[in-house]
Amino acid sequence: MADLRYHVDGDLVPADEATVSVRDRGFMYGDAVFETLRAYGEEVFRWDAHAERLARSAAAIELDHGLDSGELKRRIDETLRANDLEDAYVKLSVTRGVQPGKLTPSPDVDPTVVVQAKPLPRGGVDAEPIWDGPATLQTVKTRRVPDAAIPSQAKTHNYLNGILARLELRVSDADEAVMLDADGHLAEGATSNLFFVDGDALCTPSLDGPVLPGITREEVLDIAGQEGIPVNEGSFTPEDLRDAEEAFVTNTTWEVRPVETVDGINIGGGPVTTLFQRVYDARIEREHYGGERIGDGAESGPAD
Amino acid sequence: MADLRYHVDGDLVPADEATVSVRDRGFMYGDAVFETLRAYGEEVFRWDAHAERLARSAAAIELDHGLDSGELKRRIDETLRANDLEDAYVKLSVTRGVQPGKLTPSPDVDPTVVVQAKPLPRGGVDAEPIWDGPATLQTVKTRRVPDAAIPSQAKTHNYLNGILARLELRVSDADEAVMLDADGHLAEGATSNLFFVDGDALCTPSLDGPVLPGITREEVLDIAGQEGIPVNEGSFTPEDLRDAEEAFVTNTTWEVRPVETVDGINIGGGPVTTLFQRVYDARIEREHYGGERIGDGAESGPAD
Repeated sequence: MADLRYHVDGDLVPADEATVSVRDRGFMYGDAVFETLRAYGEEVFRWDAHAERLARSAAAIELDHGLDSGELKRRIDETLRANDLEDAYVKLSVTRGVQPGKLTPSPDVDPTVVVQAKPLPRGGVDAEPIWDGPATLQTVKTRRVPDAAIPSQAKTHNYLNGILARLELRVSDADEAVMLDADGHLAEGATSNLFFVDGDALCTPSLDGPVLPGITREEVLDIAGQEGIPVNEGSFTPEDLRDAEEAFVTNTTWEVRPVETVDGINIGGGPVTTLFQRVYDARIEREHYGGERIGDGAESGPAD
Repeated sequence: MADLRYHVDGDLVPADEATVSVRDRGFMYGDAVFETLRAYGEEVFRWDAHAERLARSAAAIELDHGLDSGELKRRIDETLRANDLEDAYVKLSVTRGVQPGKLTPSPDVDPTVVVQAKPLPRGGVDAEPIWDGPATLQTVKTRRVPDAAIPSQAKTHNYLNGILARLELRVSDADEAVMLDADGHLAEGATSNLFFVDGDALCTPSLDGPVLPGITREEVLDIAGQEGIPVNEGSFTPEDLRDAEEAFVTNTTWEVRPVETVDGINIGGGPVTTLFQRVYDARIEREHYGGERIGDGAESGPAD
């Protein structure tokens, strides 16, 4: 990390000197919103969708930071250029800053904006995925925080719920935790959205539950529409997932990642998962590397 | 704050230069535990109880920071002495530190320890309370995070739940939020424990619900035992609180603070509240200022 530079509070600084005050509410309370992004070919993927979600996160915690989408994008681009990054992982955080020592936030906010970035190999056609292999999932006891406590559409620095879920995996050696809502229905992974195939339909927990509206999730639903694959956004049980014909998890970093096992039961990918991977890769290729619409070959059918 | 010095990662530094890395898990995820303490006459009040609770918080999030109670106390004492503080507010935080960029924590922890302190007038007999007046409470819609999502015995930097509760008070102008559990029963204030008097008994939500085991709460229960006041630790409704004869809220900073109103309904303090205030003050006086057991005069009866 030593050679990287981060963007902190308006300035580019060496990563090792990138700090925030211990009185910053982002540190004291996790009182901050964030986005995880990927840059492909020097350009952030789906910036508008991430900017909109960040705005919804900020609204959900009544954080009026006063920075428009263009200014945030400018700082990300500066960070990418300063580090000569073409294909990269980017984390953008906006905190409520330092305020007088009270839990109740003041409406007058001097936000702290942090952009961290590091190299991450390209996604797109023929690219290597960043994960080592398909995901192994384990249903955990830690339940997803309900919307009545913290709205799930807010992506915030309060991430202990997911950490507790991941800590349970120390026993099973799985690499993603499946979290249920208070009623025992499927919610999401600790850092991913869940998808599975049941018959003809692509199934995924609906946003009525405590589910983060993932940008990759949205992209997958858009691809399903394009490909004419029926989608069932609903309420599902862990058994539904374990009985699935195929399953995959999505997030910005993993993109579309097949699921090998759920609770030790073999699921595996399949033609539908492959189709979504191909089309997703093709969209990145087309939009960021000026490639032909190679992936649309997948439209000829899911079988390879 | 400019003249204060904080303790960060083993060193005393000027408060304005007290920072943590943006890659510290305390900042990125609120992956940290903390205690709020008061020092009276150069000495932290109820250190052993706070140290034990910090240890329970750390255990709940599987944070094995490797620092013993004596070392943490030493850093607090150093901070108090460096700032010539006799009566003070102290916040001690222990984070999971900087780790490789994954949500799943590594068991190998190089913790970040932060001690913040600032002057706060003494508690004790004849001292001025730090609050301006009795508390006005408002029941809010934001529900307390259930234990199944994040154990309530863990006092962590994930504090957005309480912040969202406090934000709801912008409308009502109350100064503490009453939070309910998922079933609509009383849990706690955003930063305080709830007590009320019903008939002869002192009532408070039991720790079976999502309730932080407050150190001041424990002290109040101990005083109740000493004074022979019956205690009802149980499950209560917001109506029980609104119908109470007296009510007060407790935390380390506020000590015992009478409640004036709940949801706009007048409650007010009374003889039982006064008794608890007197005995609490007397304990501080006796243990920290070498005073006579003045407050024990309160033992002659709650009426003033």
